[in-house]
Amino acid sequence: METGSWYGKIERLKKEILKEVYPSKEEREKVELECNRLIQRAKEILGEESLSEVEPKVLGSVARNTYLRGEVDIDLFLLFPLEVPIDELRSRGFRVGEQILSSMGYSTERRYASHPYAHGSKEGIEVDVVPAYKVEHSNEIKTPVDRSVLHHEFLKERIKGLEEEIVLFKAFMKGCGLYGAEAKIGGFSGYLCELLVLRYGDFLSTVEAISKWREGQVVSFPEQRVTTSFSSPLIFPDPTDERRNVAAAVSREKFHEAIFATKLFLDRPSKLFFFPPRRKFSTKELLDNLSKRNLVGILFETSLYIPDLLWPQLRKTLESLSNVLREEGFNVIRSGVWSNERGLALILFELDDFYQKSVVGDEGPPSRVPIDNIVGYITKNLECGPWVEGDRLMGLNIIRRPKSAKFLLNEVISEGRFSGGKHLKKDLIENFDILVSSELINVQDVSLLEWLSDFLRGKPPWLEAWKWSERS
Amino acid sequence: METGSWYGKIERLKKEILKEVYPSKEEREKVELECNRLIQRAKEILGEESLSEVEPKVLGSVARNTYLRGEVDIDLFLLFPLEVPIDELRSRGFRVGEQILSSMGYSTERRYASHPYAHGSKEGIEVDVVPAYKVEHSNEIKTPVDRSVLHHEFLKERIKGLEEEIVLFKAFMKGCGLYGAEAKIGGFSGYLCELLVLRYGDFLSTVEAISKWREGQVVSFPEQRVTTSFSSPLIFPDPTDERRNVAAAVSREKFHEAIFATKLFLDRPSKLFFFPPRRKFSTKELLDNLSKRNLVGILFETSLYIPDLLWPQLRKTLESLSNVLREEGFNVIRSGVWSNERGLALILFELDDFYQKSVVGDEGPPSRVPIDNIVGYITKNLECGPWVEGDRLMGLNIIRRPKSAKFLLNEVISEGRFSGGKHLKKDLIENFDILVSSELINVQDVSLLEWLSDFLRGKPPWLEAWKWSERS
Repeated sequence: METGSWYGKIERLKKEILKEVYPSKEEREKVELECNRLIQRAKEILGEESLSEVEPKVLGSVARNTYLRGEVDIDLFLLFPLEVPIDELRSRGFRVGEQILSSMGYSTERRYASHPYAHGSKEGIEVDVVPAYKVEHSNEIKTPVDRSVLHHEFLKERIKGLEEEIVLFKAFMKGCGLYGAEAKIGGFSGYLCELLVLRYGDFLSTVEAISKWREGQVVSFPEQRVTTSFSSPLIFPDPTDERRNVAAAVSREKFHEAIFATKLFLDRPSKLFFFPPRRKFSTKELLDNLSKRNLVGILFETSLYIPDLLWPQLRKTLESLSNVLREEGFNVIRSGVWSNERGLALILFELDDFYQKSVVGDEGPPSRVPIDNIVGYITKNLECGPWVEGDRLMGLNIIRRPKSAKFLLNEVISEGRFSGGKHLKKDLIENFDILVSSELINVQDVSLLEWLSDFLRGKPPWLEAWKWSERS
Repeated sequence: METGSWYGKIERLKKEILKEVYPSKEEREKVELECNRLIQRAKEILGEESLSEVEPKVLGSVARNTYLRGEVDIDLFLLFPLEVPIDELRSRGFRVGEQILSSMGYSTERRYASHPYAHGSKEGIEVDVVPAYKVEHSNEIKTPVDRSVLHHEFLKERIKGLEEEIVLFKAFMKGCGLYGAEAKIGGFSGYLCELLVLRYGDFLSTVEAISKWREGQVVSFPEQRVTTSFSSPLIFPDPTDERRNVAAAVSREKFHEAIFATKLFLDRPSKLFFFPPRRKFSTKELLDNLSKRNLVGILFETSLYIPDLLWPQLRKTLESLSNVLREEGFNVIRSGVWSNERGLALILFELDDFYQKSVVGDEGPPSRVPIDNIVGYITKNLECGPWVEGDRLMGLNIIRRPKSAKFLLNEVISEGRFSGGKHLKKDLIENFDILVSSELINVQDVSLLEWLSDFLRGKPPWLEAWKWSERS
């Protein structure tokens, strides 16, 4: 291959990136040693606890050598026979996990997935000890984590030789802000990334394939039958259980961001997509920006700490309040939610005007709906209309005394006229503060101000990467 | 059938309406007599002009007894043999037509379809003398009007016995403001109405069928092959030429209005759908309404008189200016065009605010577009963004010195920064007046003020009909 070619450039780039993201030999040896020690320790403790029938096994990216350098998350599974009752698995599993970790010098904490498990950390190594059932087929599954066994069985031999390509792809997705299936991100899980590279063959082919995706995209292995219909933007039926969509967590935004990001990467292949430039946070720039924009932020405290519960409820609340604002004649240009995941949260709206319009369009039902809805709408008290626009009825209301967004949100939240998660809604109603534009700078939380600064710039990392690549 | 039933009610209603809309025996006899006289006279004149090979023939709704009472539009076709050159048909056809009409005491004028034809009127009877080719199959057609021969041949036997149902349906569509394929209306042509009743069987079945239509609806006879793909909201391939969509003129709004109107009629069958109540025009109410609303009207004179050219150009100009307003941060709630078809025209916008917003959302390309468009957008100078929203890029602009809609439109029109028909655009740029809300009442044209008053109420006739039926 010609070294000056585009492919030559990609090959050089891959090597360069791999040096930084693929685990070094030393790291892999160290991790392997630790895994063996953990297994050894687990066996001893399981024996002492009369649980010798439980098999300790390392699964996940560490077992497959597909983890990113410096991000060692050992998943030590305690695989229980199917006969063990779930209550016993829950109670004993957690306790054994804690014992293993603390006896090996890890600082431990209790975490929750579908059931509690022990998490430990020591010298840059993170370990999850997860109790699960030892299943051989998806119809035996009793708890969601049981799937990890099947996923590992499916991947371990098939991805041999593809480890570097997978790590490259994960690093790319991470740099682009697309990696992670947790609710906060709504992106691509590690397992999905591994499947994609396996399906498309290597890093570059995967990136090229993504750049051509369309909403409702179905990806599968040639031998897979795709029978079930899913409604997600991306559909990849789990090869170990075709009723499950591996890509169910990928949000519509992340799906399209992946298409944009891959297109831009192919346009200007560069290291910056893997290690996006972080613009420095500047209070002056932030204040300057705030003064030009119409921002309304709702700051509140919440006792909801578990991220996978917190983020969906924050988004639901955002959407509900956003609808209220729109119905009341505000134009919400964009919005966002922030939380430190330790009790403080912000719901933010960017408006084109702080004040309600006096004349407000009112969207009615489309022509396909049953007569009752149509009659319901035409008997509604409207200042003008309804008339037909496109496929639906439209009307117009006149608001006699336009309110400010701050006043309206105060009213709506105090009276609980919005929907959100039960917990979050209660917390929000009880204690909130509405901050308008430059008032936001007074919040005593640097991470919020950084997030706000990014929000005001509004550019995803892959876009910054493309822009900066020009100059390199 | 039980007289108290819903069907009984419809049957009584049909009889009642027919008495008012179906031509009386006397009218039909009078029209028939006039048709015979016209044919006779045509033959004489064609003979004198050495055009005996040209066959005069009455086609259209008069020939099929499917016209509305009092709306006698005789279509006298002069059917030329296919060998006659088009220039000869044009020049001699028009002259002969004029001769026939004036010799029979009609006042005549020159009108244009694909070629000029003579129009005459006398004592409530209107006559078009249209030169056309005598074709037997759609592949022989040389001018669009030639189709009338084929349409008549297709319908004349098939609709025997359905005349009353057709007239009822036409009267319904007319009352609902849906009748007429001309550019001003963008509705259902007479031929389309006849085909629909023929297809569905009778008036009520047609109305019921329409109420269940969905956008992209295909209607055809069971024996028709629907091979060509059209992109209109309603598709009815011409049974005499399947490459042509008889419903091509039906606009998206009229299509959905038809669905709404039929649903409401079936909900409350009433005479009012055929003869919609006209609310009286009140200057006081108009002024009152104008003062509450944010209206900007562009009044101008145009030399474009031909309605089928005028209305599309007016709408095109409206759409272009509407886009300019939206891009510049105005929220156009609704808009409309008016003309007296004798030189005066108005383009009207209803806004939620007379002033530009300082912060304006800017819609970018969706993820499916080629890389060049994406790069084009991300290199655009935006105050913030682009970020990804749904499937597309979005950005935000800040306008330093917000303008009023009047100021902006003045600028845009004077500088010609909009698209519209060539003629209309020139007329508009040369001489226009921008009137804001209550200034509009000063226009010295009652028909404009009536239109404005209807615009401000914003209710189609079938909706008023439903509302009033409640009270009857």
